[in-house]
Amino acid sequence: MYDLLIIGSGPAGVSAALSAKARNLDFLWFGSRSLSGKIEKAERIMNYPGLPAVSGGEMRDAFLRQIDGLGISVLEERVNAVYDMGGYYTALVNEKMYEGRAVILATGVSGSREIPGESRLLGRGVSYCATCDGALYRGKRIAVVCTDPSLEEEVVFLAELAAEVLLFAGYKGCGVRRENVRRMEGYPTEILGEDRVAGVVCGGETAAVDGVFCLRSCVAPAALLPGLAAEGGHIQVDRQQRTNLPGCFAAGDCTGRPYQYVKAAGEGNVALHSAWDYLKAAGSTSK
Amino acid sequence: MYDLLIIGSGPAGVSAALSAKARNLDFLWFGSRSLSGKIEKAERIMNYPGLPAVSGGEMRDAFLRQIDGLGISVLEERVNAVYDMGGYYTALVNEKMYEGRAVILATGVSGSREIPGESRLLGRGVSYCATCDGALYRGKRIAVVCTDPSLEEEVVFLAELAAEVLLFAGYKGCGVRRENVRRMEGYPTEILGEDRVAGVVCGGETAAVDGVFCLRSCVAPAALLPGLAAEGGHIQVDRQQRTNLPGCFAAGDCTGRPYQYVKAAGEGNVALHSAWDYLKAAGSTSK
Repeated sequence: MYDLLIIGSGPAGVSAALSAKARNLDFLWFGSRSLSGKIEKAERIMNYPGLPAVSGGEMRDAFLRQIDGLGISVLEERVNAVYDMGGYYTALVNEKMYEGRAVILATGVSGSREIPGESRLLGRGVSYCATCDGALYRGKRIAVVCTDPSLEEEVVFLAELAAEVLLFAGYKGCGVRRENVRRMEGYPTEILGEDRVAGVVCGGETAAVDGVFCLRSCVAPAALLPGLAAEGGHIQVDRQQRTNLPGCFAAGDCTGRPYQYVKAAGEGNVALHSAWDYLKAAGSTSK
Repeated sequence: MYDLLIIGSGPAGVSAALSAKARNLDFLWFGSRSLSGKIEKAERIMNYPGLPAVSGGEMRDAFLRQIDGLGISVLEERVNAVYDMGGYYTALVNEKMYEGRAVILATGVSGSREIPGESRLLGRGVSYCATCDGALYRGKRIAVVCTDPSLEEEVVFLAELAAEVLLFAGYKGCGVRRENVRRMEGYPTEILGEDRVAGVVCGGETAAVDGVFCLRSCVAPAALLPGLAAEGGHIQVDRQQRTNLPGCFAAGDCTGRPYQYVKAAGEGNVALHSAWDYLKAAGSTSK
């Protein structure tokens, strides 16, 4: 029985693991040494304090050096499900089971209805973050896929930078009205390009673009942990990153917007401190 | 009129400023190029993702390089008070005034707690500003609570006016030496008085005084911005870092524990995104 299971190795998981190590907890950390697909493919991150204008790969390398330097290891296994056992948690990894007194979920958000070509060209013209990458497309022609009215401000932000926006709004009643925004019918069926985005295909026709922003509200996370309260696809947490289940904490994109690296890292830290308080109150850390 | 005023230059303020720049907001940022006294004095920070085992000075230098590289400037002025003008905010810096449609408070926490009776008697014998109120205590007996050596000039200024000063210096190596200044042990446990300050209690004993000056490197939140909801010395915020005042956001240590650099940085980012949403909804950014 471990003190803590940390699930996910994006910035929230990294941050939780660093503080778990600093607190000398007996923990298992599930993830990947590539840390997160989203980080890896980020083109340029301008607003992470301490890492000026890094590429996603550079951020990943900085995190890996730090983790390795502290002797923290990430278990490269994919957790299929977590169960609340009433006092502790069990994580299932295929046929294996791991037990922890507390758990931190830092699982990110899954993109819905991925467009063919999207993940292949992510970081090479495909972006999920208007704040991060918008400025790269100043004066250019871009496509924006927007699946939720709450994201229209992001579309407007991009339209203020780009010369022209082809907008694929996956809902009715889109309120974006700007001269340089062209409303498109339907949903892109493919993103084209060899080394970089060259165009999008929709309704059998191809439109040339320099970049594609995919702005989606996230889908409901898989029923990873039965009984966990979620809303709008995000795990419900309070300011201490506590979920509705005692001993279960969540951090990062899985808890909601903004989907930002430093927001996730901050929440991972808070989740760990709350897990520590929980374990101490239960008198149950191994230390 | 600026879009946004950011007050404080610890990790929360740095993070908010980086994202404000990325969003191209027209903002003013108040603080110091030493960023924060707390960072400067940190011996070794082991759990900030991306900056392995840095000293506080190294973290400060990393932040400064990033800020400078992006052409962000910090206005080295101390904000005395912020006022909610009903639709915008005014920050007072001595005799100067700055206006912003929104404000982010990232003011940190002072090492010292609010003294029981302090807020009740504020403006009735309790003061935070030697310049403003010193002359009211000419020839009188006052208590001065001073938490930072950088504020000793203020103590001397008060001692030149008052008949006698009871000085509570909350740090080692206080350099104030004057005949009419009596160094007190410990920290006041209460400020007494019905309609006006009558005395201070310390170590179980009461000393009669006409006024109490609380000189702290950061002002208690509710005193900084009248009407701001606070609890236990922390500004009350929701998960979006919104305070009870529309257009006013808060981030970092001033919003509560854990007092952690990356928690503060994460909150600064979230506060900026919420401020952005607020400004866009009001249709009021300059962009």
